[in-house]
Amino acid sequence: MKLLWLYAHPEPRSLNGHLRTRGIAAATALGHAVVQSDLYAMGWNPVVSRADHPDGDGRFRAADASHAAFRAGRLPVDVAAEQEKLLGADAVVVQFPLWWYGPPAILKGWFDRVLVKGLGYGTGSRYGAGALAGKRALTVVTAGARESSLAPRGIHGSLDQILWPLLHGTYFYTGMAPLRPLLVGSADRLTEAEAEAAADALADRLRGLGTERPLAFRAEASGDYDERLRLRHDIAPGELGLEAHLGGST
Amino acid sequence: MKLLWLYAHPEPRSLNGHLRTRGIAAATALGHAVVQSDLYAMGWNPVVSRADHPDGDGRFRAADASHAAFRAGRLPVDVAAEQEKLLGADAVVVQFPLWWYGPPAILKGWFDRVLVKGLGYGTGSRYGAGALAGKRALTVVTAGARESSLAPRGIHGSLDQILWPLLHGTYFYTGMAPLRPLLVGSADRLTEAEAEAAADALADRLRGLGTERPLAFRAEASGDYDERLRLRHDIAPGELGLEAHLGGST
Repeated sequence: MKLLWLYAHPEPRSLNGHLRTRGIAAATALGHAVVQSDLYAMGWNPVVSRADHPDGDGRFRAADASHAAFRAGRLPVDVAAEQEKLLGADAVVVQFPLWWYGPPAILKGWFDRVLVKGLGYGTGSRYGAGALAGKRALTVVTAGARESSLAPRGIHGSLDQILWPLLHGTYFYTGMAPLRPLLVGSADRLTEAEAEAAADALADRLRGLGTERPLAFRAEASGDYDERLRLRHDIAPGELGLEAHLGGST
Repeated sequence: MKLLWLYAHPEPRSLNGHLRTRGIAAATALGHAVVQSDLYAMGWNPVVSRADHPDGDGRFRAADASHAAFRAGRLPVDVAAEQEKLLGADAVVVQFPLWWYGPPAILKGWFDRVLVKGLGYGTGSRYGAGALAGKRALTVVTAGARESSLAPRGIHGSLDQILWPLLHGTYFYTGMAPLRPLLVGSADRLTEAEAEAAADALADRLRGLGTERPLAFRAEASGDYDERLRLRHDIAPGELGLEAHLGGST
């Protein structure tokens, strides 16, 4: 498969840097072709702004401006290059340290700028369908917290709950199949042996990248949601948590 | 009260710009003193990087480097200025459009850079306590989606679920009292009358800013979590959703 490895950490000599090196080596050994976006090394600009659309002069509407530029082939060069990498990939590995329970700003802004209207949304289909359908997304996250606390009923919430905006609101929204994220907890306190075990766990996940079963979110077109886009009464009746949105077919 | 109005939208001539203007006018009329951080207008740099810490030359550890700089009074001038605004405020209003189910990168990076170790975390207390205890946080969010779909059992998740990393993982983590967020849905399709109604709703919330009851997350020190930092078996028994973390005293 062709992989895009999207990576957001400021220090190559870090646990994340080590996992990235080991992960890309493992993916390559498995026969995958890996293209990388190392956002810090690229000096990626994460800020959606009018500067991306020098033609406009009236009120700046980010969605409309990016949609028009996308259709006209006039997006900024850096954005177009990332879209090309993404569209050419069969799977995306998204690797980052958890900062304030989300991706670092430089990575959030990759999604903000790259997934423009016409590609990421506004395509007429979403949540289980869309322009990125057929691609798989594996999230690799390091966190300072212990894994026991990043769990259902854990004080921080489970990683799936914390990353709902990414797993469901971004990957699944755009049609990608979200795989269960890989968590490396206690990241500031790992021994060398534990860091190697984490790299092995990543290699394991890469082995199953093309075959493992994605998170079974319910597709918008599944009929599980009513006309107000709420779960029908007979679907997961009475459940209010995010878990109610699982149970689709994969 | 002293308010910090943290604002992240690229276009002043937008619904967000209108809500900001109306909101600050309402807050001022209520007798509050408002300080503003208009991140786009400031050209805020949202990227945590080694460039913030020119003294270091070895492996860059963002948490340790920012902690040392914070204690030594050697943080970058822009970061120190935002910390001063935050520490001087009794309440923070955080206003943004929902992009990919989270804050725009420029705002995510405000938290990444401003809430350094020693201020935001690593203080010895968190989740209901911490260096920002006593402050209140009101989130004002515009979203393209209809409000009915941004609800429990709504396809996008409820705003409280989507914003868990901000409400619980950032505000509550640092000791701030998270207020119920204000949602302005269907933001791209509002009539003028609807936009005025949204501004009125914001003014209402500002009237209750000092008195309304915050979201009742359970404090880490409440005894509701066990030694693995999971909810004790007798607390919200069997509940796996984020809602299980509500029920604390406020």
